[in-house]
Amino acid sequence: MDSLVPETRVLAVASHVVYGHVGNTMATFVMQSLGCEVAALNTVHFSNHTGYRQFKGTRATAQEISDLYQGLCQSNLTDFDVMLSGYAPSAAAVETVGTIGIDLQEKAEKKPGSFFWVLDPVMGDQGRLYVNDDVVPAYKKIIPFADLILPNQFEAETLSGIKITSLATLASAITAIHRIYSVPHVIITSVQLFKLSQSGSTPSPPENFLTVIGSTTRSDGSPRLFRVDVPALDCFFSGTGDMFAALTVARLSEAVSAVDGLRATKSWVSPDDVAATDLPLASSTVKVLSSMHSVLERTLESRDAELAVAVPAREGEASAEELEKRDYLRRTKAAEVRLVRNTRILRDPKILFELQDWKEEDLPQDLR
Amino acid sequence: MDSLVPETRVLAVASHVVYGHVGNTMATFVMQSLGCEVAALNTVHFSNHTGYRQFKGTRATAQEISDLYQGLCQSNLTDFDVMLSGYAPSAAAVETVGTIGIDLQEKAEKKPGSFFWVLDPVMGDQGRLYVNDDVVPAYKKIIPFADLILPNQFEAETLSGIKITSLATLASAITAIHRIYSVPHVIITSVQLFKLSQSGSTPSPPENFLTVIGSTTRSDGSPRLFRVDVPALDCFFSGTGDMFAALTVARLSEAVSAVDGLRATKSWVSPDDVAATDLPLASSTVKVLSSMHSVLERTLESRDAELAVAVPAREGEASAEELEKRDYLRRTKAAEVRLVRNTRILRDPKILFELQDWKEEDLPQDLR
Repeated sequence: MDSLVPETRVLAVASHVVYGHVGNTMATFVMQSLGCEVAALNTVHFSNHTGYRQFKGTRATAQEISDLYQGLCQSNLTDFDVMLSGYAPSAAAVETVGTIGIDLQEKAEKKPGSFFWVLDPVMGDQGRLYVNDDVVPAYKKIIPFADLILPNQFEAETLSGIKITSLATLASAITAIHRIYSVPHVIITSVQLFKLSQSGSTPSPPENFLTVIGSTTRSDGSPRLFRVDVPALDCFFSGTGDMFAALTVARLSEAVSAVDGLRATKSWVSPDDVAATDLPLASSTVKVLSSMHSVLERTLESRDAELAVAVPAREGEASAEELEKRDYLRRTKAAEVRLVRNTRILRDPKILFELQDWKEEDLPQDLR
Repeated sequence: MDSLVPETRVLAVASHVVYGHVGNTMATFVMQSLGCEVAALNTVHFSNHTGYRQFKGTRATAQEISDLYQGLCQSNLTDFDVMLSGYAPSAAAVETVGTIGIDLQEKAEKKPGSFFWVLDPVMGDQGRLYVNDDVVPAYKKIIPFADLILPNQFEAETLSGIKITSLATLASAITAIHRIYSVPHVIITSVQLFKLSQSGSTPSPPENFLTVIGSTTRSDGSPRLFRVDVPALDCFFSGTGDMFAALTVARLSEAVSAVDGLRATKSWVSPDDVAATDLPLASSTVKVLSSMHSVLERTLESRDAELAVAVPAREGEASAEELEKRDYLRRTKAAEVRLVRNTRILRDPKILFELQDWKEEDLPQDLR
């Protein structure tokens, strides 16, 4: 029998690309592979991801996104357990996605835990916004309705207003996100801990590691912090954030379903006496990262094999600039994540990583 | 190890729906489940399939479809082994899909068999066109470039100009399609043989059977006809044509790859001495129909279970008309094909059906 997660119906709102795997074109197949029924509402329709530095296609307007959702409503096709929302192409589109999330939440009001919203606040990376400025306040307005958000380090800084420079400021940023937005679950999807200043006694992982930090609040709003260190692979892959989010939907649904009564608890928040490393969010994250790491390792092998093949010569002359561009496109294509031949790894990952608790001395004074 | 077909890169051009499985929302996942790398270019973006009798969403213009393809071209993302083209929302869109198919064919010109175009001429069913009249000539213009077409009975009649009323006229229609359009492979995806007049000695299958008829031409243009009878299930499912097409892409690629040299032969046409029932197209069709039948049987069980649950009462009064509409929507939703929990059946079907050859006396005089 296939290793599928419990039946989970997901509304996935994100971008679609014809070629390759990012946004919904990553998330849909990943969740489907694990047995989730996915309804994909596409916020853009591009030929390829923007990492190629050129693409063609169209963006959905806020009105078009809203119409599609109204189409679902009028035919009673809104029985979703989870919404996963990712990239939206404008502030108005972000607001519309918010309206959809809030509407699904209201429809589920009488059955606590029957609807769960995972929100990836796609705004920027590496210290730089790649959306319009007005998208930031739009996200700030809708995040209070989400159950789990998945910012990267830059987005966590933007949302918390706290610059992450140490383990202590990282903990403060997560705590602030819990408090400001009343959002019960947070995962910061990649922090380069070795770049942070050393404070406390927890050793940083080696330089080529990424750290994923998560937390589920207690009833007093304090965080329950866990951490997983993962070796970074020497290649930039597009769509890994979407892959993380999609696997998290499936694995969190699985982990929560395994705990008596938790799926019928508002926002799937574990009782206060559950330790950070015993959280469903924590065990889910370990599985997610293990699947991802193995798939990306295979992708790297396939990429290297693809790039090792000699490029056929083309007719005509090409400028140095043109040759460089071709090479860049070829390298970008070769790094597309290999999904369809690796579903076994998505479904049955070999567990590669360990959860780590936080040492008290790594927490800021007010959190100890 | 998973039972995946050999690596096959597919460009799938068809409709997308948010909820449920038709068009690309059926075909993409089905092909991916079998291990194909699929690039989905969506010709419409609807909330749900039109069988619900109401939907919202947008249609892509011919220009938008063309732009997306140009986006792939400019980044060298056109290394497709197969194109599967389905529903296009206008005659201009059909022409554009034709231009794409022809361009991919030209790019592959120097490597016979390296590109194969499966075309589903979506025009109508049950004696009725459901596209604009001008879509018919648009299809007639592009079909000569396709390698395999998958008309239903009505579409085969429209394309051949021959009314199918007997086994002999069915054979004539397929022969005409081979000859008029020089299309080497044809499958007529569902014929109700029991409705045809009895001629020749081949007994018709019982009333609740559907027959699938296929053929690959010989070098003289004559057909090699095979037939598979399949029990019909007592339910209308949307997207089964798309499921058939998607499974055929994967299984034909598999069957052709198993024959030495065939994949490097133009249009994957077997030598003349290969009998109809030994054709890769024939063995592929048996696997395809076996997977489909098992998935649809499971779908029927799930549908019945879903409909057996009492409908929760709603506040307020509803007219008889409103109640009837709700019931219709509910039944339509319950009949959505169940894919994600049944991938094992897609990958490893139990072979349920048998290939049948045609008796000579069932062929028209000129084909004997």
